[in-house]
Amino acid sequence: MSRQDSLEALRDALRAFARERDWERFHTPKNLAMALAGEAGEVIEHFQWLSGEESAALPEATRAEVSLELADVLLYLVRLADVLDIDLADAARRKMQINAQRYPVEKARGKSDKYNRL
Amino acid sequence: MSRQDSLEALRDALRAFARERDWERFHTPKNLAMALAGEAGEVIEHFQWLSGEESAALPEATRAEVSLELADVLLYLVRLADVLDIDLADAARRKMQINAQRYPVEKARGKSDKYNRL
Amino acid sequence: MSRQDSLEALRDALRAFARERDWERFHTPKNLAMALAGEAGEVIEHFQWLSGEESAALPEATRAEVSLELADVLLYLVRLADVLDIDLADAARRKMQINAQRYPVEKARGKSDKYNRL
Amino acid sequence: MSRQDSLEALRDALRAFARERDWERFHTPKNLAMALAGEAGEVIEHFQWLSGEESAALPEATRAEVSLELADVLLYLVRLADVLDIDLADAARRKMQINAQRYPVEKARGKSDKYNRL
Repeated sequence: MSRQDSLEALRDALRAFARERDWERFHTPKNLAMALAGEAGEVIEHFQWLSGEESAALPEATRAEVSLELADVLLYLVRLADVLDIDLADAARRKMQINAQRYPVEKARGKSDKYNRL
Repeated sequence: MSRQDSLEALRDALRAFARERDWERFHTPKNLAMALAGEAGEVIEHFQWLSGEESAALPEATRAEVSLELADVLLYLVRLADVLDIDLADAARRKMQINAQRYPVEKARGKSDKYNRL
Repeated sequence: MSRQDSLEALRDALRAFARERDWERFHTPKNLAMALAGEAGEVIEHFQWLSGEESAALPEATRAEVSLELADVLLYLVRLADVLDIDLADAARRKMQINAQRYPVEKARGKSDKYNRL
Repeated sequence: MSRQDSLEALRDALRAFARERDWERFHTPKNLAMALAGEAGEVIEHFQWLSGEESAALPEATRAEVSLELADVLLYLVRLADVLDIDLADAARRKMQINAQRYPVEKARGKSDKYNRL
């Protein structure tokens, strides 16, 4: 019994969701990119006045809110990739390979400046 | 033979990537939320001067760049969820259910104002 | 002579506002940069589902909301510049000069790609 | 009397800059809101891996870069307000008054949670 890959399952569910509501016309890449950035802005607002330590020990109510904000980012990201016909999981794997070459372990260890992008 | 779910596979790969480089100390939720928003900003810059139609017909070189930017957003999103101990796929499913109740098909069809969030 | 629309007047008012509330300790450049990005995200959310034309003909209530969001961006921007000891008006003038050289009128006219940054 | 640091002077300069380059057609509020958010994203990227203390003690080269990024945010903000026919200085003053009522000194002092918006 296969469980569908979660990114593909989300893509399909979002595609159906938009089609049923006749929202496809609003879902241009431009508009979805704006929605993505707007949701990322909502994520950041939860953390702006916290110290790094506080941000790692959120009250449960805040953590629950943040999880739905992260979900929003993911939903718009998956939908944006879909309308651009981009395979998001594949792009992520390719970017991981690029990062592995760009930040070799021996050079990047513990460095926070240029050697520290995911 | 199971293929690991892509979000879980990414989470594990990113966790190892950070650990090997001793980057865990930089990966507070606060910092990762900033990185997420920064990458979302890079996505948006590709689309800001395009019409909706143009944004749906990107030149291939631009589409390739955008796919790596979307990958960056996904990588930081997955990593942020991980350090917050949030199950991203589960949060997305819960948000989809909330959205289905909030935007019932018959009321939301073709409306672009308040009835049109993913 | 009034300096009612001056950046310096705003800077001074914000400095006093923060000091009176003992908020200076929260106003690190890092935190203020996050707040700035969060507010920019709120601005964008007002426009994400609108066409370009609709965005130029906002209902009055929306326009009133947007003007307070733009104010938020300005307040955080001025405060961020202040804690970094950056002269914002001077930086803007320098950037205008750079832009004038980078986008000469004869080459940039009507081009929306690389020739079109403020 | 100089109005060297004035928002109106910037607005006028930007208006002329766009008109000379025939860029007014690209300068819809929607597009300018995207550009604003993109620039705020660039600001944030300078600070994402720094501690609060490090963010307040930028190397001079970084501070110079950041000042031009802040200038970009200001330029797009002023231009966006202009195309929306919003008086930015007036909006900022109104927002300061709202904030003064919302965060009275005696209640807001030293609080970093809900009592701490500019």
